[in-house]
Amino acid sequence: MAVSVLDMSMSLDGYIAGPDDKPGNPGGDGFARLHEWGLTPEGEFHRSGQAGEVLGEMAAAGAVLAGRRTAEQVDHWGGDHHGQGIPVFVASHRPPAPSVADHPLVTYVTEGIESAMAQAKAAGDRHVHVIGAYTAQRAIEAGLLDEVRIHLVPVLFGRGRRLFDVLPSRVELDIVRVIDTPEATHIRYRIRR
Amino acid sequence: MAVSVLDMSMSLDGYIAGPDDKPGNPGGDGFARLHEWGLTPEGEFHRSGQAGEVLGEMAAAGAVLAGRRTAEQVDHWGGDHHGQGIPVFVASHRPPAPSVADHPLVTYVTEGIESAMAQAKAAGDRHVHVIGAYTAQRAIEAGLLDEVRIHLVPVLFGRGRRLFDVLPSRVELDIVRVIDTPEATHIRYRIRR
Repeated sequence: MAVSVLDMSMSLDGYIAGPDDKPGNPGGDGFARLHEWGLTPEGEFHRSGQAGEVLGEMAAAGAVLAGRRTAEQVDHWGGDHHGQGIPVFVASHRPPAPSVADHPLVTYVTEGIESAMAQAKAAGDRHVHVIGAYTAQRAIEAGLLDEVRIHLVPVLFGRGRRLFDVLPSRVELDIVRVIDTPEATHIRYRIRR
Repeated sequence: MAVSVLDMSMSLDGYIAGPDDKPGNPGGDGFARLHEWGLTPEGEFHRSGQAGEVLGEMAAAGAVLAGRRTAEQVDHWGGDHHGQGIPVFVASHRPPAPSVADHPLVTYVTEGIESAMAQAKAAGDRHVHVIGAYTAQRAIEAGLLDEVRIHLVPVLFGRGRRLFDVLPSRVELDIVRVIDTPEATHIRYRIRR
């Protein structure tokens, strides 16, 4: 059974996006700071070393489950999430914009997050990469999330959009692995049931 | 010159206190969960191992700088912060309650956080242990904080009081050291100037 993984870069004060995030300014002001750890000085994704290992695990996903807000800000990654060629499921209560019909890998699921996650898990035997704060929190609440992988970036953003806002109850995690680099502390957690 | 260190246990979602924190319920509901890492199964502070090492560093402080809210919730630690016998400075714009006169180690500083920090640093050559979310953020804003030591506890609290709320500007940190234990990820940061 595929596991579902929330995989996000986050500032120490809990932000995953800067202020003023919107289409045309996806991730908000200063968003790139949270993702510097993944890039070489030449602006390429790391292919080796500890950052390369972490990126490789992320890229091993078999499907993406994304929130609508995130997906629309980046125009559904042009229809192919980082060139991975894997299906992208968008959980939303409203039908997609007409332009989404141009993206055969993108499927809107309007029947709720349980259905969206089930379809994403059924799409392959590799993990489901969950993206977006709202969707992640609904997945946690619904007991649909298996793992949290946080790339904790040594910066205080001060303001922007937080990954974790308010959850209805406490959630216990188990630390699976910590990778310590100067650019980020990569922590994998399993959600305890 | 003594360095100033914010040293706090924090949930992955950024909370340092649970809901309903007040005198009589210091730290709010479930507060103890954030500090389990420091205790043996018998409820004693760890004296050895990695947790003992981290606690030892914390206990090596030469002075405490605390916010009034935190200090009053715990009745000024009975006048002696965890039996350390070190001076405690409380930054507040209002004079102390009369009962504080019974605590010779506790000094209220009403002239602002710069003065409070200067007095705390002058009290010894060991580090100043900064406690409390509000005071910590004012110290960061004023450029008075040197280090942040976070004990990141594998739990999502969901609600309560956050360590970092809103800061006026972005603050860059350098990771000094990570200690990886099953109970908490202990990360030391130096604030970049």
